[in-house]
Amino acid sequence: MSAMAAMKTELIAVGTELLLGYTVNTNTAFLSRRLAELGVDCYHHVTVGDNPARLAEAVKAGLARADCVITCGGLGPTVDDITLPTLTKVAQRPLVLDHAVLSRIRERFTRMRIPMPQSNLRQAYVPRGALVLPNKVGTAPGFLLPLRTKLLIALPGPPKELEPMVTDQVLPWLKAHRGLTGLLRSRTLHLTGITESEVDERVADLLKLKGAVTVGIYAHAGQVDLRITAKGETPAALQKATRKVEQDIRARMGGVVFGVDDETLEQVVGTLLMKSRKTVALAESCTGGLIGHRLTQVPGSSAYFLGGVVAYANAVKTALVGVPAALLRQHGAVSDPVVREMAAGIRKTLRADYGLAVTGIAGPTGGTAQKPVGTVHLAVADAKQVASRALHLTGDRAIIKARAAQAALDLLRTTLLAPKPAAGR
Amino acid sequence: MSAMAAMKTELIAVGTELLLGYTVNTNTAFLSRRLAELGVDCYHHVTVGDNPARLAEAVKAGLARADCVITCGGLGPTVDDITLPTLTKVAQRPLVLDHAVLSRIRERFTRMRIPMPQSNLRQAYVPRGALVLPNKVGTAPGFLLPLRTKLLIALPGPPKELEPMVTDQVLPWLKAHRGLTGLLRSRTLHLTGITESEVDERVADLLKLKGAVTVGIYAHAGQVDLRITAKGETPAALQKATRKVEQDIRARMGGVVFGVDDETLEQVVGTLLMKSRKTVALAESCTGGLIGHRLTQVPGSSAYFLGGVVAYANAVKTALVGVPAALLRQHGAVSDPVVREMAAGIRKTLRADYGLAVTGIAGPTGGTAQKPVGTVHLAVADAKQVASRALHLTGDRAIIKARAAQAALDLLRTTLLAPKPAAGR
Repeated sequence: MSAMAAMKTELIAVGTELLLGYTVNTNTAFLSRRLAELGVDCYHHVTVGDNPARLAEAVKAGLARADCVITCGGLGPTVDDITLPTLTKVAQRPLVLDHAVLSRIRERFTRMRIPMPQSNLRQAYVPRGALVLPNKVGTAPGFLLPLRTKLLIALPGPPKELEPMVTDQVLPWLKAHRGLTGLLRSRTLHLTGITESEVDERVADLLKLKGAVTVGIYAHAGQVDLRITAKGETPAALQKATRKVEQDIRARMGGVVFGVDDETLEQVVGTLLMKSRKTVALAESCTGGLIGHRLTQVPGSSAYFLGGVVAYANAVKTALVGVPAALLRQHGAVSDPVVREMAAGIRKTLRADYGLAVTGIAGPTGGTAQKPVGTVHLAVADAKQVASRALHLTGDRAIIKARAAQAALDLLRTTLLAPKPAAGR
Repeated sequence: MSAMAAMKTELIAVGTELLLGYTVNTNTAFLSRRLAELGVDCYHHVTVGDNPARLAEAVKAGLARADCVITCGGLGPTVDDITLPTLTKVAQRPLVLDHAVLSRIRERFTRMRIPMPQSNLRQAYVPRGALVLPNKVGTAPGFLLPLRTKLLIALPGPPKELEPMVTDQVLPWLKAHRGLTGLLRSRTLHLTGITESEVDERVADLLKLKGAVTVGIYAHAGQVDLRITAKGETPAALQKATRKVEQDIRARMGGVVFGVDDETLEQVVGTLLMKSRKTVALAESCTGGLIGHRLTQVPGSSAYFLGGVVAYANAVKTALVGVPAALLRQHGAVSDPVVREMAAGIRKTLRADYGLAVTGIAGPTGGTAQKPVGTVHLAVADAKQVASRALHLTGDRAIIKARAAQAALDLLRTTLLAPKPAAGR
């Protein structure tokens, strides 16, 4: 394999518990992320049960398609654990006793002060020519087996055992022995207040890019992500390529890009409040406490989040937020005048710099022809004015709540970013 | 396929984000579990990227090995979404416009009051002969495509869209059309207020069962699940076998079993409040709104949930919940006297039957030697008395919040189940 060609890898997870859905496979995502960071390509993930014939077939197919096959799981001491004998057969290598592994397993049992079960002896055998990967957490070692032009890697299934083995042993080995110079860098932009199709229309040309830089689009409730992925030879080249596309996207999208990579909307809002030394109070109706929950997921949020009222019943809107009962009667709880009063009222009651309010109909019942399920009103109040907007959301109850909370946090974000809004907006 | 032979299915997840490890694939585990409950066998899970050639190859391999292939993902409106054209090609069926789907997509955009982007028109085309599976949450419909002797099913990728489509449409269709006799049945008991090791000790013998009935244990934050799985030939035999083990577990565990299968603690609490025609109000500090959020996830919760106060800052505890400032000074906000006042105060202020309160230190900062991070106080008040308890939780901020909310809901549950508590507890 030349140093410039990206290595191709295929991952095979082994375990009947995965096929039955009792265990969610997190190893594959972990390995894929780590391999992608090294510039290793991965085109297939496969899962098979504890069945030697199907595992052998999958390993052969993987070796035919890729440069390297990595198996996860099935290395334990029980008869269910079929990976070692199967790989030995596929690779046509005899099993040999590894004395170093045997003495590590013996030591482990001595430390635990229990006799070593005979079944653990099996774990001291590895295919001839394999490089053993000691297991610092459990008993089953992994191994790296270089074949004529390919590479076979076997890892244990428990993430607690697999993850350190990958980080401390497999990745350094791959770096040192496979001359991987192709680096990969990705950066994800988070957008809100825009639909997936609108984003798609604005960046359709970028989504079709093939080559050193590609862009992917991913939609969640109330959020669209654009991921820029660049391949290159130096970190500086990668950064330059990524930045160019990011600037292009930001120029087309404007303020709907609220954060990057691991940033959440509540973190971004928190940072803006912290920097401007402002506080916020909430009056939530249909979101039921979700906005407060999200704001308080951020460590240190007590510096800017005072608290608020979950005004689910109308009486609470009157008693604790000061919405006049007459206003509720005249316009209904889900209305622009009421949400504006809620925002202004909670701001005043809790002496906050900003009051943020939501009222709406999350469903499945409670909708009318005039105000169907998904009707949501938002408002943000500061000392001078109140800004409000109406949303018409779709989805089930949980999704409407999630989208309403997201839009409310985004209303606060855009307000914080526009320090001198036009009067009366 | 005879009614008695188990149907074989293969699952194919589609998405480059899965191969890059940016998204953990939970759809496969969800589908596998549901299919296993129907007695459907599954021997392979495969993941490919947004690449038509590799998806086509995987679908062909799947159709050669299994009776039914289910794809997840790649049905959206963007150019990345390659599943529909690829399946159409593999199945050799022309695409036809489905007017019902088109009008549902149009309606959705009309409701949202935005013009329908041209790209969404793509989603109204399905292979000829396909049975459309309407998407109640997003725009992309799924479909069932019966081939000569095989079955092809295409589902959207977002779990919020896939899961209801599977439960409400795919499984009932499979049951009705494929003559699947229930060969496997599982029932999950949810426990809270007990550690995994305590549960393990009490049911160690059941966890070792091999044969027609098995029991598995699974721990989450603040919750332990015991899953009973029975294999058999008739629904009656399965039910009998499952019930026997369930009764045994309940006899050993008592009141810590709060629900079964899809039941959540907030649903169980909601049902108890509804049945007793009682209302509840909340005073949340460290949970920040999470308890209100959970209670309002349940449709119809406005019948018993009045609302509450998120008393994050001390001033809010005094201003809106009526906790005397002197009490806060004397004992600190995280203390038994304060949480009792919060529960009694919010009950009185909002004229609820029950007041439920939480105060604590979620961390990572704010702990002291006397009150370390994870110190949480809970209280529930009714007209006659206040019951309280202290917790010492471990974990990060998010886990401490989740465990505190779970324990608070469970305190309300046990209070509702004990209609005549001993005085002065």
